[in-house]
Order: sequence, then C-alpha cells, then structure tokens
Amino acid sequence: MAFNSFGNLLKLTTFGESHGIAIGGIIDGFPAGVTIDLGAVQKELDRRKPGQSKIVTQRKEPDTVEFLSGIFDGKTTGTSIGFMIKNTNQKSKDYSHNTNTYRPSHADYTYDQKYGLRDYRGGGRSSARETANWVVAGALAKQLIAHININAFTSSVEDIFMEKPYQDIDFSNTESNDVRCPDPETAERMIAKIKEIRKAGDTIGGTITCVAQNVPVGLGEPIFHKLHAELGKAMLSINAVKGFEFGSGFCGAKMKGSEHNDLFNKDGSTQTNLSGGVQGGISNGMDIYFRVAFKPVATIMQDQSTIDSDGEETTISGKGRHDPCVVPRAVPIVEALTALVLADFYLLNKTRKS
Amino acid sequence: MAFNSFGNLLKLTTFGESHGIAIGGIIDGFPAGVTIDLGAVQKELDRRKPGQSKIVTQRKEPDTVEFLSGIFDGKTTGTSIGFMIKNTNQKSKDYSHNTNTYRPSHADYTYDQKYGLRDYRGGGRSSARETANWVVAGALAKQLIAHININAFTSSVEDIFMEKPYQDIDFSNTESNDVRCPDPETAERMIAKIKEIRKAGDTIGGTITCVAQNVPVGLGEPIFHKLHAELGKAMLSINAVKGFEFGSGFCGAKMKGSEHNDLFNKDGSTQTNLSGGVQGGISNGMDIYFRVAFKPVATIMQDQSTIDSDGEETTISGKGRHDPCVVPRAVPIVEALTALVLADFYLLNKTRKS
Amino acid sequence: MAFNSFGNLLKLTTFGESHGIAIGGIIDGFPAGVTIDLGAVQKELDRRKPGQSKIVTQRKEPDTVEFLSGIFDGKTTGTSIGFMIKNTNQKSKDYSHNTNTYRPSHADYTYDQKYGLRDYRGGGRSSARETANWVVAGALAKQLIAHININAFTSSVEDIFMEKPYQDIDFSNTESNDVRCPDPETAERMIAKIKEIRKAGDTIGGTITCVAQNVPVGLGEPIFHKLHAELGKAMLSINAVKGFEFGSGFCGAKMKGSEHNDLFNKDGSTQTNLSGGVQGGISNGMDIYFRVAFKPVATIMQDQSTIDSDGEETTISGKGRHDPCVVPRAVPIVEALTALVLADFYLLNKTRKS
Amino acid sequence: MAFNSFGNLLKLTTFGESHGIAIGGIIDGFPAGVTIDLGAVQKELDRRKPGQSKIVTQRKEPDTVEFLSGIFDGKTTGTSIGFMIKNTNQKSKDYSHNTNTYRPSHADYTYDQKYGLRDYRGGGRSSARETANWVVAGALAKQLIAHININAFTSSVEDIFMEKPYQDIDFSNTESNDVRCPDPETAERMIAKIKEIRKAGDTIGGTITCVAQNVPVGLGEPIFHKLHAELGKAMLSINAVKGFEFGSGFCGAKMKGSEHNDLFNKDGSTQTNLSGGVQGGISNGMDIYFRVAFKPVATIMQDQSTIDSDGEETTISGKGRHDPCVVPRAVPIVEALTALVLADFYLLNKTRKS
Repeated sequence: MAFNSFGNLLKLTTFGESHGIAIGGIIDGFPAGVTIDLGAVQKELDRRKPGQSKIVTQRKEPDTVEFLSGIFDGKTTGTSIGFMIKNTNQKSKDYSHNTNTYRPSHADYTYDQKYGLRDYRGGGRSSARETANWVVAGALAKQLIAHININAFTSSVEDIFMEKPYQDIDFSNTESNDVRCPDPETAERMIAKIKEIRKAGDTIGGTITCVAQNVPVGLGEPIFHKLHAELGKAMLSINAVKGFEFGSGFCGAKMKGSEHNDLFNKDGSTQTNLSGGVQGGISNGMDIYFRVAFKPVATIMQDQSTIDSDGEETTISGKGRHDPCVVPRAVPIVEALTALVLADFYLLNKTRKS
Repeated sequence: MAFNSFGNLLKLTTFGESHGIAIGGIIDGFPAGVTIDLGAVQKELDRRKPGQSKIVTQRKEPDTVEFLSGIFDGKTTGTSIGFMIKNTNQKSKDYSHNTNTYRPSHADYTYDQKYGLRDYRGGGRSSARETANWVVAGALAKQLIAHININAFTSSVEDIFMEKPYQDIDFSNTESNDVRCPDPETAERMIAKIKEIRKAGDTIGGTITCVAQNVPVGLGEPIFHKLHAELGKAMLSINAVKGFEFGSGFCGAKMKGSEHNDLFNKDGSTQTNLSGGVQGGISNGMDIYFRVAFKPVATIMQDQSTIDSDGEETTISGKGRHDPCVVPRAVPIVEALTALVLADFYLLNKTRKS
Repeated sequence: MAFNSFGNLLKLTTFGESHGIAIGGIIDGFPAGVTIDLGAVQKELDRRKPGQSKIVTQRKEPDTVEFLSGIFDGKTTGTSIGFMIKNTNQKSKDYSHNTNTYRPSHADYTYDQKYGLRDYRGGGRSSARETANWVVAGALAKQLIAHININAFTSSVEDIFMEKPYQDIDFSNTESNDVRCPDPETAERMIAKIKEIRKAGDTIGGTITCVAQNVPVGLGEPIFHKLHAELGKAMLSINAVKGFEFGSGFCGAKMKGSEHNDLFNKDGSTQTNLSGGVQGGISNGMDIYFRVAFKPVATIMQDQSTIDSDGEETTISGKGRHDPCVVPRAVPIVEALTALVLADFYLLNKTRKS
Repeated sequence: MAFNSFGNLLKLTTFGESHGIAIGGIIDGFPAGVTIDLGAVQKELDRRKPGQSKIVTQRKEPDTVEFLSGIFDGKTTGTSIGFMIKNTNQKSKDYSHNTNTYRPSHADYTYDQKYGLRDYRGGGRSSARETANWVVAGALAKQLIAHININAFTSSVEDIFMEKPYQDIDFSNTESNDVRCPDPETAERMIAKIKEIRKAGDTIGGTITCVAQNVPVGLGEPIFHKLHAELGKAMLSINAVKGFEFGSGFCGAKMKGSEHNDLFNKDGSTQTNLSGGVQGGISNGMDIYFRVAFKPVATIMQDQSTIDSDGEETTISGKGRHDPCVVPRAVPIVEALTALVLADFYLLNKTRKS
C-alpha cells in the first residue's frame, strides 16, 4: 500500500522532486554481511547521469550518492539503507514558463487534477530524475546477486533495429559507444539519427532489450507475482515506456503451438527458448530476455499549442536541456530494476521449501 | 508479500488446484452497501467457462460460484467476501500420463524444481482454471465501478487482425460470435482459422484489445503504482501472455515527439490519444486502451519428445480436452482484471486529497 | 492493506460470519514439502469448540475443517492452502431479537456506524467464531516450527490466580481439567468460580499466560516488527482482550535498572529473564512468556437496558448459549496466534543474512 | 513486508543509526493540500530531544528536522515526504568500550546473533534515537487529524502513581513540569524520585497514559487491524515498553460482565467507558485511553558483569549520558504513534462505505 515503494522482501521506498533539495530513498530488507563496493554504485549512477555524451541532455548534474545508514565498515548491517542525492543544478528559471501551462503529453495536467496542486518545477515528482534513486538501489541489488549477469542495451532507435540476435553479441561493446548498442555498426547509425533529430528540435523513441543470464531455476511466484509480470510492471514504471514483451512476445501471438513449444534437453534446459526463461511465472534456468518500448520524449524544441490551468489556449516553446532520445540513458535503469526484481525473488525463494 | 493476492485496497486472495476439491478466493476491502447482482457474476463466469462453443475446449464444467460471506440481504457488508467454485468434472485419468513427465512449455518442470514436488493433476495450481476466481472478483469490481465501461475483444488470431480502429466498432457485437471479435467479417475468418488449427491438432496465439471508457481523471499512483504498470502486471499474470502495450505501444517507439504528443483541447481532453488515456501513470479521462499478446496453448494434440522427472527421454502424446486458441475465453478474464485494477485505484483515490 | 489478513511471509486471510454458510481462510506462503498431520489440526479445533465441557457454552458445533487446496499426498505443495469450516448449527432464531437492538459492549453499534448496515445474526463477522480459522492456521504453523514448544494456560479467573511461576509447572496438566490451568488445585477453584458465575447469569474475565520455549535466537525485526509487538498485536486481536504484557510487564514499570537487567551467562543465556526472551525486538533464546487479559464476556443472562438503531430505549434479555468465561476456550487461540507469529519470523529470518 | 515501515495508507519508513550521518524517513500516502506548520513539527521534536531538563540525559542534540520533498509552498503535494535529522553530537568515544562487549538487557547480543555483525556505536539502529523519526511523522499526522485531541502524560514513576482519573485533569499542565505529569503535586514527587535514582547511578521505570478525544465513530478494521491492536503494536514498538492495556485493561480481567458492560445513552454514547472507546476493534466515539508500561533504562551508572562477543566474562562500567527514567521524553513519542495510527485509519475509513 506504499505508493512510492517497489519490491517485497527487498523494498525500495523513494522521495524527491526534480528541483527540490534532494532525492533519495530507503532500501529495506537487504541482508546483512554483504560487502558493498560503493564505487560500483556511483559508476552505475554515472551511466545514467545527464551530460555524459553529446547525444543526451547537456544538463550537468554530478549525481553523487551519499549513504546515510545501513552500511558499516564496508558491509551491510541488515538495517535499512538510507541514501540521498542532492539536487545541485536546479535552474528553476528554465521551468518558470510551465508554472501554469500544461505541457502536452506530460503529467502536469493529471497531477493537478489528482492532487489539486503540483510542484511545477521541472516536472516535480513526475520527472525522470526519480530514476536515479532506482539506479542506486539496483546497483546494490546487483551486488547481492552477483552470480546473475544482467545486460541491457539499445536494440532500436526509431526504425533502426539491431538485427543480430543477442546470442551473437558481445555485451562488452555496450559501453563503448554513446547510444549503448553493442553492435558498433548499428550504433553508429543510431547516433547519426539522434543527432539529426536533435538538430530538428524533435525527439524519437526506441527500444531496450535486457538479458539476464545464470538465473537460478525457481525464481518467481506462480500466481500474482509471476517473474515476468513483476519485470513487466517494473519496466512500465519507467517514464516514457509504452510496452513490454518477453520471450517470443507479440510475435508469439502469431505462432503455432507446434512451433512455439520449447522441447527439453535431458538436463532440463530447453532446445529453444521462446519462453524467455520463464515457465508458469517461474524461472527455468534459461536466459531471461525481454524488450521495452520507449515513446519519444514529450519535450520538444518546437512551439506547441496547449492550454493553461484556466483552460485558456496558449503556446509553449521548447526550452531547457532535454534528451532527444531517452533510450541510451535508460539502459542502466532497465538493468537496475531487473536486478531489484531478481534480488527480491532470490530472497523470497529462500523461504519456499521446508 | 502474499504471493496469491492481487490488489491493494481491494484485494483478491485465491486458492485452488485444477483437480482439487474446489477453487475460490477472498475479496477483501470491498466497500459496504453495494447491491450485488449475483446473476451478473455468474454470467461473467459463463463467458469464461469451457464447453461454451465449438472453438473452445469441450470439457464441461458448470463453474457455479457460491458466496460464503460478506454479502447479506443482497448487499455487501464491508467484511471479506469468501467464495468457492467446486471442481465437478475432475477427470484425473486424463492427466495420469503427466505424473512424472514434463510437458514442454508448461510449468511442470519449474514447479518441481521450485517446490520439490507438485500436484500433477491437470497442471494443479498452474492451470488456467485459477482465472475463474479472477472473473468472480472482477465481476464484483465491475459493479463497484459501474460508471466505467470496460470492453475487451479478440483483436487478432494468428495473422488475422481486426483492422478497424476500436472507435469504429460496436462492442455489442463482441458476444455475438464465438471468437469474441466485434467485427463480424473478421470474426468469421478467425473462427475458420481456429477450426483448421484444431483439426491439425495444433494451437495458435492471438491478441486481445481492451478499452476502458468514462474513467475519471486521477486514477493511478505516479511512481511505482502507475495505472498502466498495474494493468500490465495484471495482464502478464494471465496464463500464456507474452506481451503488453498501451496507447501507441511498440509503434510509439518508432515515432517522433512532434507526431506523438497529444495536444490539449480547452476542456483538458486531448485531440489525439497516443498516450492511451494515461499520463505520468495517472488517468487523464481519455479512453484507456491496451493490447495483450497470447502465445499458442502449449498442449497440442501431437506427439512431442520430452523428459521425465528422472531426466529420461520420453514421448508425450496430446490428450485431454484443450483449447486450440485461448483468446476467446480470455476476453472476460482481461475485463475482470481491468475492473479489479481500476476499482482498486478508484478506492485509493478517495484518500489522496485532503 | 488487507484488513482480514494476518502475517507477512506466512499470511492468513479469513472470511466468514457466525451464521453464514461457512467460515474459512487461505494460508499463503507456507513452505512446500511439510508433512501435515490433519488429525492434529482437528484436535486443536476440538480444544476450541463449543460444548466440550460443562463450563463453556453448550452450543454444539462440530467445527470440522475441510482443506480445499495446497496439500497433496499429505504434504504441503507451496501453493495457497484454502480451508473451510461449515456452519452447521445456525440457530438464527436465537439472535432474532438483536436485529435492531444494540447489545451493550458488543460491536453492533460500531459496525452499523462504520458500514451503514450489518449482518446481525449472532454477531456476524464480529463473532469469536472467526477464531476457529486462526486455530486451523496456527495448527499448521505449529507443524512448521515443531522444534518450538508453545504452551498457553489459564493463569487467572477473576481474582483466583495461579501463584506458582510457570517454571514449576507441568504443562501436560493443562488439558487435564476443563479450565486449562496446569495447577490442579487452582483449576478446581477456578471451575467452581465459573459455575457459580454461570448460575448467577453473569460472566467473568481472566488471564492467559503463554510460554514459548526452544525459540531460536534472532527472530523478530527490530524497528516496527518487534517480536513482542507482533505478539501483542496478535493477542489484542482476540475478542475480549484488554491488555498484554511480556517479561516483567507492568511490574517492570516499578523496578530499578539494577534489579531489572538480565546478566549474561558465558553461553549468551541470561541469569534472569525479566526481558521475557526478547531484547531489542529480537528473540535471545530464553523463554518467551507473556500474559493476556480478557474482559468478562459481554453477553450476560440478565436484563439490560439499551437502545435500538433508532435511538429508542429498550431492554435486552440474555438469550442464547454463551460462555460464562471465555478464557478456557481461548487457550488454544493464544497458542495458535503465537505459532503464526513465530513461524512468520522463522521464515523471514532465512532472508536476513547473506 | 517492509521491516522498517509503519502504517498502511499513511506509511512511515525510516532509516538511521544513533551515530551515523543522519536519521530520517519517508512519509508515504499523506494527502495533498494540507497546510503544514513546520514550527509545530519542530516543537514536537523539541519535546523529545535530550538535554531539555535536569531529569533527562544531558546529551545536547539540536535535532533539527529538514524536509527534503513532498511539501511545496507550505502545502503537502501528495507525493512522498522525505525528511532527515542530522546527527551532530556523535561522541563515539563514549561508546568505544562497547565495541565487543554485550551490555546487559540491551540489543547488542541479539543483533550480533541475528545479523552476524552490528554497528556498535551508541546502539546503532537499536538506539531510541530512531523515535525522533516517529515524532516528525506523528507531528504531521496530528495536523492531518487536527480535529482529534491526543494527550499523553506520565501516569506513574516507579511506585508513584497519579491517582486522579484523567477526566479530572487539566492536560494543559502536562508541559508545565519536567516529568510531564499533569498533576503538579504528583509531578513534584516523581521529579524528586528521579533525581534520587540518578544520584544512585540507577534508573527506574514508569507508565504513560494516553487519551484521544473527539475520535470519530468507525475507525479501525474489525478482524486483524483492530484499532486497539494497532495502538498496542505501536506502543510495544517503543524502546523499553513491556506492556499495554486499554479501557479496563488488566483490571477488566477481574470483573464481572454485569459490572463491565457499558450501557448506552440514547445518542449512542455510553454511560461508562470500560471499553476504552473501542468496541469490536472499531472506535465508538467515546474517549480512547490506554496505558503503557516502560521498564527502567538498561544503561545504569554502575559496574555490571557481562560477556563479550567471544563469550569471555568482563565488566562493563556505566558511561555516557543517559536518561534515569525514559518516561518524560517518551510522552511525545506515545502521542506521535497514536496520531499515526488514528490518521491511517481515518484515511482508510474513507474507502469503507460505497
């Protein structure tokens, strides 16, 4: 019933507005005795932060995480882990034109209607700045389930798709280019597309694919906490996400059972993996893979007609420093939420057999 | 933390195996004083039940719901509503061949690995029989939010798609044919396809589209309980679902911001609705619509090679009475879960403004 | 957020009115692979049931539990365990005089005010009949943590107190008399007192003490799920309970620190146990013991002036078959809830160390 | 399932160790549009803070709360409210002697056993410093339910009891003396007792009584979230609490039904109030009152024999600046938790009738 919480046994609760004093969160249920590499946490945050390359927003935010509790002498103590990221680059004047104006396809209107008021500075709570909190928690979760490899990457930008199946890809290439597509040739085309779009003052969508490998068999609860349903909910929580599919996904809806069934090998693995590593909501030990659709960022550098809170027509001009395509910066966010979901089920699974 | 529970303020908790004594559930948090039309509940169950037409499984199960508590003199009392559906048609011999054999792309293997044992009769807890419980709860939820219209329908079967946009469709046609596609001509082709597939002893997938109209503005919690994320999780909980998209969905990932943004009318409605009725996780009063992908049913009437629980290779022959395409019977399930999600947020929203 | 649920990892959700068709519940999170002794479950129910002796209500209810799911071939399967107890002895006419009349110190008035209506038959949901559900769940929990010994007993009835400390008592005597006081001489006096009170058409209160032994060190979460706080909440959930104290309890409030501190032995045990087996909300391996106060049953066999739902004065005459003292039948209820709390923390504790 | 969370619709999640960088929390579910008096929040914190009078610990901690989110232009926005209290007076050397030594009747031993390690500085997470977080959240809750009056006070210190019933007491006297007993004469005797105990290097226990007035009828959920059970759990969460009773409490266990029943007036109020304002777990509009027992503080200024983490015997000398009696500083904590419980049920109750 906590609206700002994610997870069950491993639970993240967050706070923070885009232009408030700080954002942050509390990670509850993290087991005691885990040695934490704080540098690795900051490194994940740096993958998400603005200003890291030419194809993302040029805002400069250091996004330095401070841990306030729960880690002592380099180890988790089993108590709740509080953390905070100060907002240092709050150019509120960038947003002053939004005080009263509803930006199209943003959350301004719905927040005002739901709550009767809103913090209009930079989107307030609806800003994707919140996802920095998720990256912090996900980075800790990754360290808890270090035996599981989680790799997300940009699989399409507009109509440029990475055609190779993920099995033929070297994930170590993902961080070697600004768009985070592990296929260098495709990455180049994606980057060119994003630059072109930015020049036009427009934005574009794309997709991220995520693969989790070495997942133990048995994660997931089979009725209302199916592994893939929790992953789907997690991904649909990311700003701008419009769709989620795993395994065969929407293509599976066009197939026959005789084509789609994954036949077993003698060791319990399967010859194909259209199931995407999950059967009946429970991991089967095969690779878990899924794809997430991101719409184009709503803030464009063009004039748009809109209304204000009095219902008067007005024009909104694109200002501020925004991402022409959200996908590259969303890659670490997808990984972080995947880690949180898997770590939660990993803990839960310790309690399911007598 | 309840693995068999769905929802927050309005909470459904369920039990039951396919071939046990009964399935059932408890609906908690339903407000007092709502007059319940029990006939309408049974009618929803009848839409889901086996044997209702020639293109679904020919198993005969009456699926009669008995309410055990929480309704008195025709009204809800505010206490928990217990209900039960007895399993009357338990032909366990149909399944005896599965005792030890893992059916491909079923949950037999993962249950065994997770729990160390399983109720192998008819899939046990992993059977889609569980969804009858959801239909009961959803039928009550529909009565709580009777002002919202929820209409799901079959939008594709294999590669046969209903091409018309839902705005041009008369939903009252949905129940007029066996496949539950509101476009009569498309429905006919879908039915022919399913009959052909059944004859071949095979199965096929498809998609369901769902539209919720007259949704009040303000439903949904904006960070981890986004309206569309909860809908996505709900849909991904249905057996055989592989994907979920809302509004522009995966197509949105190929669009530009200048095309995708929904510009406002003076009354706060929008000229287009690529957002799918949700902005920032909160309903904006426009139609909510989403699409759900179902893989082909894993049980086919053909021989398949597989393994048993000792890792020995064996052959499994298709037996029992199964659906060649799960989509027509899933239509009321999609509606039921949609109603549960919306009703939960409807209650929650009563607490969000002072 | 489920109002009719108890517990976290091991969760009981219940339904049922006193005079409805059935009461029952769902036990969620019970680990797979536990061999269940169904006879032992029924035996616990029999300890609670009406009509078992001359000093309890003479209503006859067989209270037979039926398990509907989650147990297969004598073992738990890890899926939710549904169960039901049919209401067979629904003498609604006994209660017809209450339709409109508010019984003093009952929940009639508060239910009506809260919900706008109520199931007036026999107290409906507010009846202590609900506790039969708890005994079922507790009996399963006892089998999960069979290494822990839980013994409750009647420690006072009105002003008759069992003076001996529990350490000097043989718990095997508890079931040897109708009042469930393990000291035979005190038991006799208590029984005489209850008979005298019944004859006067009156009721009396009393206390139950509960001792849990062989509790592993480390159960309990130290901030908001302290072991003793959960036990306290559990006990205060039992109908008629007015107080809870553990360890030194209210006496501890009159002591000095130098008297109250429990000094350690070399093995980590303590020389005294005023702490009651819990330090900082976490079990320390010593005996957990606590005391629960029950008020006299509100239904007395005497005329009382009261009001009806229109605010008119009226007289209510004691009718029906009620307990002159609730304490003897509450002993198995106290044990059941204690088992549920400890089993929940036992499961939880599997996740707290890496 | 969050171990560091309290409440349901209004949920507080906390973090922080006694000698870490900061303590703090997140308040989730607070409705939008409530004007917040920040000065009133700080004033509550000041009532709890150390060094405020001669009979409490002489540690000096300013305990200044900083709100980080969720309040904008003086009003709540409906988003999560993050707050922080920096630890400014971290004299860790005061505690260096405890690194390895288990203080009797503290949580050192149980934390070490449960988690395998602990933050030994000043009790770490087990320190009552955590309760400052609760006072912040409770102060906000008080403003949400400003129509309800909540007054706690010291009702006994060791064997000095305030004999007058609370009805005869002027609560405005509570803050007029250091011990927070609203009866001036009794207060004086209590203060003298505490001074005497402190001089002896010892500590003493006591009780707090709390009264909530103008509580609307209908708060509380009748089975597992009974109003008094949640209050009891809340109180038992406070460090050093050993018992809780409401209404007639343990005295009620010695009474007859004919004496104990509260007869109705025509307006639904009752002539007596042994029920303590709660019937069937639901508030009935009468005063809610309860009593909480605190044991003597475990840290005494005397030598005690104990063991270290290797099981070796050692002596611990009382050092640091501690409270001789925890009761006066606990008064605002009792009020804060009461406000949180009532505010949570107040929100919840908006959803219980159609």
